[in-house]
Amino acid sequence: MNFVCKNISVCERTGHLTFAGQDTVSLAEKYGTPLYLFDEDRLRENCRRYMSAFQKSGLPGFRVIYAGKAAAFKQMYRIMREEGMAVDLVSPGEIATAEAAGFPMELSYFHGNNKTDSDIRFAFDAGVGYFVAESEEELEAIEEEAKKRGIVQKVLIRVTPGIDPHTYEAVATGKVDSKFGLAIVTGQAEAAVACALSLPHVKLMGFHCHVGSMVFAEDVYERAVKVMMEFADDMRQKFGYIAEELNLGGGIGVPYTEADAVIDLDEKIASIAGAFRAVCAERDFPMPMLLVEPGRSIAADAGMTLYTVGSIKKLPGYKNYVSVDGGMTDNPRFALYRSSYTCLPANRMKEPGDMQCSVVGRCCESGDIIQENVPMPETLARGDLLAVCTTGAYNYSMASNYNRVCRPPVVMLKGGDSYVAVRRETEEDIMMYDL
Amino acid sequence: MNFVCKNISVCERTGHLTFAGQDTVSLAEKYGTPLYLFDEDRLRENCRRYMSAFQKSGLPGFRVIYAGKAAAFKQMYRIMREEGMAVDLVSPGEIATAEAAGFPMELSYFHGNNKTDSDIRFAFDAGVGYFVAESEEELEAIEEEAKKRGIVQKVLIRVTPGIDPHTYEAVATGKVDSKFGLAIVTGQAEAAVACALSLPHVKLMGFHCHVGSMVFAEDVYERAVKVMMEFADDMRQKFGYIAEELNLGGGIGVPYTEADAVIDLDEKIASIAGAFRAVCAERDFPMPMLLVEPGRSIAADAGMTLYTVGSIKKLPGYKNYVSVDGGMTDNPRFALYRSSYTCLPANRMKEPGDMQCSVVGRCCESGDIIQENVPMPETLARGDLLAVCTTGAYNYSMASNYNRVCRPPVVMLKGGDSYVAVRRETEEDIMMYDL
Repeated sequence: MNFVCKNISVCERTGHLTFAGQDTVSLAEKYGTPLYLFDEDRLRENCRRYMSAFQKSGLPGFRVIYAGKAAAFKQMYRIMREEGMAVDLVSPGEIATAEAAGFPMELSYFHGNNKTDSDIRFAFDAGVGYFVAESEEELEAIEEEAKKRGIVQKVLIRVTPGIDPHTYEAVATGKVDSKFGLAIVTGQAEAAVACALSLPHVKLMGFHCHVGSMVFAEDVYERAVKVMMEFADDMRQKFGYIAEELNLGGGIGVPYTEADAVIDLDEKIASIAGAFRAVCAERDFPMPMLLVEPGRSIAADAGMTLYTVGSIKKLPGYKNYVSVDGGMTDNPRFALYRSSYTCLPANRMKEPGDMQCSVVGRCCESGDIIQENVPMPETLARGDLLAVCTTGAYNYSMASNYNRVCRPPVVMLKGGDSYVAVRRETEEDIMMYDL
Repeated sequence: MNFVCKNISVCERTGHLTFAGQDTVSLAEKYGTPLYLFDEDRLRENCRRYMSAFQKSGLPGFRVIYAGKAAAFKQMYRIMREEGMAVDLVSPGEIATAEAAGFPMELSYFHGNNKTDSDIRFAFDAGVGYFVAESEEELEAIEEEAKKRGIVQKVLIRVTPGIDPHTYEAVATGKVDSKFGLAIVTGQAEAAVACALSLPHVKLMGFHCHVGSMVFAEDVYERAVKVMMEFADDMRQKFGYIAEELNLGGGIGVPYTEADAVIDLDEKIASIAGAFRAVCAERDFPMPMLLVEPGRSIAADAGMTLYTVGSIKKLPGYKNYVSVDGGMTDNPRFALYRSSYTCLPANRMKEPGDMQCSVVGRCCESGDIIQENVPMPETLARGDLLAVCTTGAYNYSMASNYNRVCRPPVVMLKGGDSYVAVRRETEEDIMMYDL
């Protein structure tokens, strides 16, 4: 069989699905379901793929920043630290977690379209390395706080380059019109640069942009790097300011099904580096350090969710429904975006997928769907194990207690062993807040 | 001004929004933002409106069941107990909460398209009054567990009547094709009745259906009651079985904006009762107890969310963005369904709404939107208070920790006083699960 990710295979003897070389049926028995699995080796490999691609690119300076919103918990930050990654943090909750995990906070970038005053204080207390600022108001709030503490705070300015990641049309409206960042085209980005340069306790390190999510289109980052360096050059000419860092954000697409494209990271980084080198040479601009912020492409294919099959409802002439013991509470991405996933019958991998069905969750809500049009064996029955692949990103991190359903644990798989990184939630935990 | 709900008004002196007669600005100062408010008096009034409408209808037996998935926490179950409501429970988490709140479990209905074996044991341990069964498999699992415990378990069978709540077309496909219930048209409902009647430890009390959510269309429940009683009569003829309870589920629509219709509950219940009486008389069927399961129409307009305005981004020629200190983490309904909400500038209620904007959240996600095309005063600034009305249902209950954002507290307002019913989550709480 041909799987989306190489860490997935089938045991010839048992017909069971294996993940990271381990028997999923045994893991489900040991830890219960629903269960988030993370292949730690794959996580590390994904970090190293980025590092190695950048090393091969020959750029003078680069930094790979893990976007923790994809999946943030203490052990994740420990692994990122060990892999030499920087991290992107978006809330006091993420800051506190990275800090508690011993992450070197000078390598953290604090993002957010709406950092509150208390968020800003929280971030200063934790010593975040960089603020990625989104407005002049925010720059001034940072200045005030830095002044109070007698320090100089490193800052990037988030710029909207006006590039739509999925189409050439609507370039101007597409991504200028965003709650994030400051548009080049409206002059707001330039005004923010002037503002930052006027603030004695703010050290402007460079610029940030983020073109979108699940980007597969050929030259999006190449166009972004060009627009951003043209902007940087413009700022040099206007203010004599020379940017030292250019952060291209994240968004590199990941395959969820066999129909999805696979991006060759070496090629992609080489191509971005080429475009970067060219525009810097053309403008005689000293090459800034190049930063990227992958989240999904670090975490997604390192994850898998295991469910136990419950009710199977066959509606002759209509549809078949396979219910599992989780759903939109642990994976809201179909409900939110109609996202694609590959679902597999983990204990019946050698049986033909001759029954088309909808895999649905346990919530009292019609929209609680994991995936539509899934082939499953006709023999599938209550108690069977169902795996959903590529759930490492935006599953655990987006989980809710809707219907007061407890959130699953995160179990890490490493070199044939397994351990709990996030424990299972209990009914007592959920009630803890109720007075 | 004309508000969606009568518990909302404006103080002439301060220009502040009041909710349940209390100053929202003072509440925000006292409890912080984001903040869920619940008007306890309105909650109770909503329960009493149902009770009174049924009393006026003159039906011999009725029961109003609160669908806790709209908003479930201990204090809510205490209020429901005091108001003489029954409750609908959908998970061990909801069961545990109702039990811990001292709710009389014999008045609880346990729902779910996929009750796991451990859910079923959990429900038996808690002594839930009724199982609303969705398959023969589930009936057999209930039988086995009841037998083991030497008791007889009351059960309703959930039937799909083939009624689409929003259109007359697609009657057959619309709601037969559902993960919930057993279809009449396929014979599966009848087979389940035969199964239930054969099980000595299962006492079939009657039938349940649920036609949908946000139902405004004129005669949906009237049609449902007719289809369901025809089915009940059919079962009497086939098995000599006489249903004692008919549960019509929930779904009565609630106005979120001034454009939405308002349903007169007295009229609606009288009309359903009329249709029910007619079909029972026509078929000479002894009138079963009539049950309804309102969730949204009990909780929605008793709720309001308060946010502090943060960054305001004006994009000349494009759009304006007002960011608040919450978003899809505390209210995912726009992200999930593009739901309508009324947003108000709580401390500037007397100023004209001359700026059109998108009210957006703080998450690092473009889809983190509370509402589009909202009129706000041009003077709106960082630190202002923004209220979102009618958030009592499916907001707190659907909240997540996406971006590791802490969930807001629930504060109850009662007769001029306020108290915390669910405390605010902290960063420490979120990290508690991480090993």
